[in-house]
Amino acid sequence: MTRIVVVNPNTTAAMTEGIARAAAAAAGAGTQIEARTAAHGPASIEGYVDEAYAVPALLQAIVDDRSTPDAYVIACFDDTGLDAARCLADAPVVGIGEAAFHVATLVAHRFGVVTTLARSVATIEHNLLRYGMASRCSGVRAADVPVLDLHVPGSDARERIGSQIEAALRDDGADGVVLGCAGMAGLAAELSARYGVPVIDGVAAAVALAESLARLGLRTSRLGPYAPPRDKPYAGRFGGIAPWRQR
Amino acid sequence: MTRIVVVNPNTTAAMTEGIARAAAAAAGAGTQIEARTAAHGPASIEGYVDEAYAVPALLQAIVDDRSTPDAYVIACFDDTGLDAARCLADAPVVGIGEAAFHVATLVAHRFGVVTTLARSVATIEHNLLRYGMASRCSGVRAADVPVLDLHVPGSDARERIGSQIEAALRDDGADGVVLGCAGMAGLAAELSARYGVPVIDGVAAAVALAESLARLGLRTSRLGPYAPPRDKPYAGRFGGIAPWRQR
Amino acid sequence: MTRIVVVNPNTTAAMTEGIARAAAAAAGAGTQIEARTAAHGPASIEGYVDEAYAVPALLQAIVDDRSTPDAYVIACFDDTGLDAARCLADAPVVGIGEAAFHVATLVAHRFGVVTTLARSVATIEHNLLRYGMASRCSGVRAADVPVLDLHVPGSDARERIGSQIEAALRDDGADGVVLGCAGMAGLAAELSARYGVPVIDGVAAAVALAESLARLGLRTSRLGPYAPPRDKPYAGRFGGIAPWRQR
Amino acid sequence: MTRIVVVNPNTTAAMTEGIARAAAAAAGAGTQIEARTAAHGPASIEGYVDEAYAVPALLQAIVDDRSTPDAYVIACFDDTGLDAARCLADAPVVGIGEAAFHVATLVAHRFGVVTTLARSVATIEHNLLRYGMASRCSGVRAADVPVLDLHVPGSDARERIGSQIEAALRDDGADGVVLGCAGMAGLAAELSARYGVPVIDGVAAAVALAESLARLGLRTSRLGPYAPPRDKPYAGRFGGIAPWRQR
Amino acid sequence: MTRIVVVNPNTTAAMTEGIARAAAAAAGAGTQIEARTAAHGPASIEGYVDEAYAVPALLQAIVDDRSTPDAYVIACFDDTGLDAARCLADAPVVGIGEAAFHVATLVAHRFGVVTTLARSVATIEHNLLRYGMASRCSGVRAADVPVLDLHVPGSDARERIGSQIEAALRDDGADGVVLGCAGMAGLAAELSARYGVPVIDGVAAAVALAESLARLGLRTSRLGPYAPPRDKPYAGRFGGIAPWRQR
Amino acid sequence: MTRIVVVNPNTTAAMTEGIARAAAAAAGAGTQIEARTAAHGPASIEGYVDEAYAVPALLQAIVDDRSTPDAYVIACFDDTGLDAARCLADAPVVGIGEAAFHVATLVAHRFGVVTTLARSVATIEHNLLRYGMASRCSGVRAADVPVLDLHVPGSDARERIGSQIEAALRDDGADGVVLGCAGMAGLAAELSARYGVPVIDGVAAAVALAESLARLGLRTSRLGPYAPPRDKPYAGRFGGIAPWRQR
Repeated sequence: MTRIVVVNPNTTAAMTEGIARAAAAAAGAGTQIEARTAAHGPASIEGYVDEAYAVPALLQAIVDDRSTPDAYVIACFDDTGLDAARCLADAPVVGIGEAAFHVATLVAHRFGVVTTLARSVATIEHNLLRYGMASRCSGVRAADVPVLDLHVPGSDARERIGSQIEAALRDDGADGVVLGCAGMAGLAAELSARYGVPVIDGVAAAVALAESLARLGLRTSRLGPYAPPRDKPYAGRFGGIAPWRQR
Repeated sequence: MTRIVVVNPNTTAAMTEGIARAAAAAAGAGTQIEARTAAHGPASIEGYVDEAYAVPALLQAIVDDRSTPDAYVIACFDDTGLDAARCLADAPVVGIGEAAFHVATLVAHRFGVVTTLARSVATIEHNLLRYGMASRCSGVRAADVPVLDLHVPGSDARERIGSQIEAALRDDGADGVVLGCAGMAGLAAELSARYGVPVIDGVAAAVALAESLARLGLRTSRLGPYAPPRDKPYAGRFGGIAPWRQR
Repeated sequence: MTRIVVVNPNTTAAMTEGIARAAAAAAGAGTQIEARTAAHGPASIEGYVDEAYAVPALLQAIVDDRSTPDAYVIACFDDTGLDAARCLADAPVVGIGEAAFHVATLVAHRFGVVTTLARSVATIEHNLLRYGMASRCSGVRAADVPVLDLHVPGSDARERIGSQIEAALRDDGADGVVLGCAGMAGLAAELSARYGVPVIDGVAAAVALAESLARLGLRTSRLGPYAPPRDKPYAGRFGGIAPWRQR
Repeated sequence: MTRIVVVNPNTTAAMTEGIARAAAAAAGAGTQIEARTAAHGPASIEGYVDEAYAVPALLQAIVDDRSTPDAYVIACFDDTGLDAARCLADAPVVGIGEAAFHVATLVAHRFGVVTTLARSVATIEHNLLRYGMASRCSGVRAADVPVLDLHVPGSDARERIGSQIEAALRDDGADGVVLGCAGMAGLAAELSARYGVPVIDGVAAAVALAESLARLGLRTSRLGPYAPPRDKPYAGRFGGIAPWRQR
Repeated sequence: MTRIVVVNPNTTAAMTEGIARAAAAAAGAGTQIEARTAAHGPASIEGYVDEAYAVPALLQAIVDDRSTPDAYVIACFDDTGLDAARCLADAPVVGIGEAAFHVATLVAHRFGVVTTLARSVATIEHNLLRYGMASRCSGVRAADVPVLDLHVPGSDARERIGSQIEAALRDDGADGVVLGCAGMAGLAAELSARYGVPVIDGVAAAVALAESLARLGLRTSRLGPYAPPRDKPYAGRFGGIAPWRQR
Repeated sequence: MTRIVVVNPNTTAAMTEGIARAAAAAAGAGTQIEARTAAHGPASIEGYVDEAYAVPALLQAIVDDRSTPDAYVIACFDDTGLDAARCLADAPVVGIGEAAFHVATLVAHRFGVVTTLARSVATIEHNLLRYGMASRCSGVRAADVPVLDLHVPGSDARERIGSQIEAALRDDGADGVVLGCAGMAGLAAELSARYGVPVIDGVAAAVALAESLARLGLRTSRLGPYAPPRDKPYAGRFGGIAPWRQR
């Protein structure tokens, strides 16, 4: 059996539940999903500041994990803390942003990304650049919907997302769409049916890739920047001990 | 149950067998692998000319397929005929080259590629550029081993491949390695153990990604360049009928 | 005297005639043009599938050629089979796509490309990327005219092409235009006069560059990926013999 | 008078002192430097994990600052937390990495970077890519010296750094050098004299650029990704209040 | 005291005066600005030809300078003659174009450039590419105002510039603006106030960076392409002596 | 008959003669070559300063030309003054640097450039970047031979050039070579024979491309940055009249 721990790096438990449902729906028969919510930090991750404050709890969730899963998934589309998590985790780690990009290029020539707020566009573009995926993306569009409004009853979130999808297909040359927020996990099938193109949800994509890595027996390289951290004093509230030693 | 058809676009049945073994080893419990050998064309694909002559038989294998698999894998590291296959296949298609690149970036910061002959380097570099993966690759190295010599008893193929892996790790800044030929499928585990870094075999990676696409219910977009071909007369030995109509 | 063989890789003889006329009009006094039509394959090349099935006949036309010309021209704007042709031909080979791009940069700061169908855009963009010309191109636009409709009496092809040229000059920052299909060969002079900018036809450009290579005594390098193919068995309908040995 | 607050995001006070000296030496007559040490976190920042845990204390130092300085400098060569700091600070913020890169291009055609440990190379390369500076950099080299060993008496740090500078000038085509660690702040003048090329220290460069922004009256744009964070609940040890509201 | 010589490479003295005012306003208390007008050449620099004829007088102004300033500023947004000036000047040289780009990236995520005439766009784009800044620029827009009309009473120059700024912020994703002509030096504060984003004038930015280099004691590298010119005969009106020897 | 004016922008008549010979050898039967030497300026162009002072005489040679040729060639590998010449000339203008790059990509996968002095490398790299050709070039190497020493009897110039060609082929992955100086014009055939790869001389390549443009009836676009210069006062030694009006 394959065990995957999905960490929601924000502190909204309802969102973790939605992510867990999407992850379970995407998982294979022999895969068990466990979802975790960050113990402290922002209720949603919207921009650089939330991201910065969310990372320690995300890392702590991985460090504290005693379940030795086969892989971790970070369920924030910004791939918040992904690099540091790779250094600390014994198992491979997949971000839902990178997973969505990789999977999208297997079924579409050029994918558009539709995210929540304009302030998240820069981080996503920046990840596309680092991952080498910028040339495969037709553009990142914001639907102007805060993360936590995605599931508010009566919200026009679907209309706003749909309207950006239409623009991506019509104006940007996209022939596939990536949903740019973990909170959009449940919408992919419906939107794909409506627009007749592949619509990729990062949670599902990341679960599939995490299962793939587990099956292939691949683990994060320890030779380069993902080497485990050097031990050293951590001052202040860490009491001198590096937090990853405190488990 | 998931069914994946793996097409070896060269005509060497022994190589198809090795590919089938590697594919089966990588496949999940509920996945059935069927391997096909191209009906006509070169015994191995080494350079632009072999590639050009191999594609029609590869496409025909897909067109003639009545088994309605969940996904296809093209088992040549050059991703020979991948774009055309996507236009023709009802199921998603994954190339072993692209699969290896995508998977490598999930476990390594920068991957090196070790292929067979120098003449294949340009095609691989060209694919890396198209896929957007060039910035994640530390370089493509040739081990100077013809494809069909990889399994000749007494060959020094392993030594030559190993020596290029060492150079990639030491001189090029790689912290992971992609094996750049379908014929190297069986070597990944041993080489990974020897060099202490992730070593990715494209056949295994492609099977995992193909299973992922199948599980996620994703199919090739029909909106862009992967639209089904326009029907039209095909002259000469095609007898006026487009070959993909001749099934 | 310089002899240039122009190969039309589709099987429409009427199109070969138009290409031959354009080639002859562009050729110098001492140059003789011979045009060939592919012996089998699609009536027009529109997208990846047609391209894949057209290449073998194109290569065969070169292999079977006993006329020892000074240069070959491949008269499909996708530069179909160009790399493989370079490996097989004793004389230099020029594609009409690459020729148009190179020539355009000598008379314009940034060129727009106007091609036939949307499905051809990806291949052209991909070639621009490989050739290093992407930064010189303001964009590839499709006139939404099938190749074989270009010369149908009463067709609105010219209007559609003209309207995309206008958009390229007005919206994309182009100051020159490349016609993206061999079938547009006869339109360059008229469109250049109408829009007051250089309009480049690939057939004419390729003939001029082929003459240039012939005059300069330059031949394809044999050191890199254009080395002649390694001999090897070709199974199936090839009867064991590599097709380029069968002349 | 111009007031600049320089924040050392690691917790080693001795290093803050060296940084403060370098900053004061670089500052103009009318500029006052105040240096701060992070209240909690790693003793040095070497790689992704230290970086992730250092950012909150860095941000808190800025949030808690009541001195309304004219500009902030972040004194870690990785530009740790720079984006988030820009969102939170009322004054402009300059990272010592970016400052060194910008200044280097004003006096050299192509600069080499010499940093401490190999694990920091990826972050620096990644910043170069984001900033658009990658094409101006001849390469990032690691001297294999831990940050806190830079000032250990009897250390061979200078020799190791010097030997990488020589390699950058001789092998990589650099005609200028950037010192890639805040702890190297005191070495620039001596190394510049020894090698006869500009050697840029990021602390000095950042102070100069921070003074420039202050003098020019420029402040961080609030229109794009540097907009102030949206207010929202912060759970766990934050007690429900976003940390930047807690001052 | 820091002394900066600002050279206006065109021959319009009224424009030099405006540049001198902007430079003085940006300079620190201890900085003295001297402005020079080119002795011969075009009244304004608009396109490649003016640029080519302006450079010799610019260089001569630097060569003839006996004042041994701490730095030079070239006050044309095209950075006309910057590379050659660096080879000849004993002090560092800063172009107002490059200065504006560097400073803009410290306060904005992506800057737009608004210049005078369409014919200047290509040079600016080309500089952005060389400097590595292209990825940080949202686009270069022309206000369609000749340089010398910028200060003609009753001109609609401000409206035209404002309208391009609006387009850059609204359509191109800019969150900051660079004014692309030395003649716009006086407009930055007003435009910044009106549009609520950082608006950067190159003259002010270059003075600040020139002061920075002077304070940091940095001089142009002599190792690479900025080495002093090799002495050699200069024929014709130079009378056999290289012009930089004729002072 | 086609008439091509080749302008040597340096003032060394002996070098013009060599260029004229190479041009005539490359020209077709019906082409007449006229070579011009710049009336004033440096004896050779080595670096940014020589370049800047050479351009006015080059432009004047074109402006003063009453012979209405079919095309101009600028015979300096740096493509000195090419953009300005295009604005002023009634006929198309080809630089020998760009010509060599374009032609090289038609016969080689990746070309190396071997030039004279290290100080010229930056200009050539910069042109490669602008032209979009950087990705096709394996590297620019300097033979460390001053331009005017190329033909000094007893010079070891050929050995030095040969040794850099060997390094380009062996270490850089080149399969073709571009000679990076007009003064190397006579060496291509011999070096090509010695190393068995295409060796491209820019003078010959430019003559061929100039003939091509003339035959194709293509002229420089007037729509973009190559528009004729705006008329305006030119002060100082120009006596108020723009130099291109003074013919």
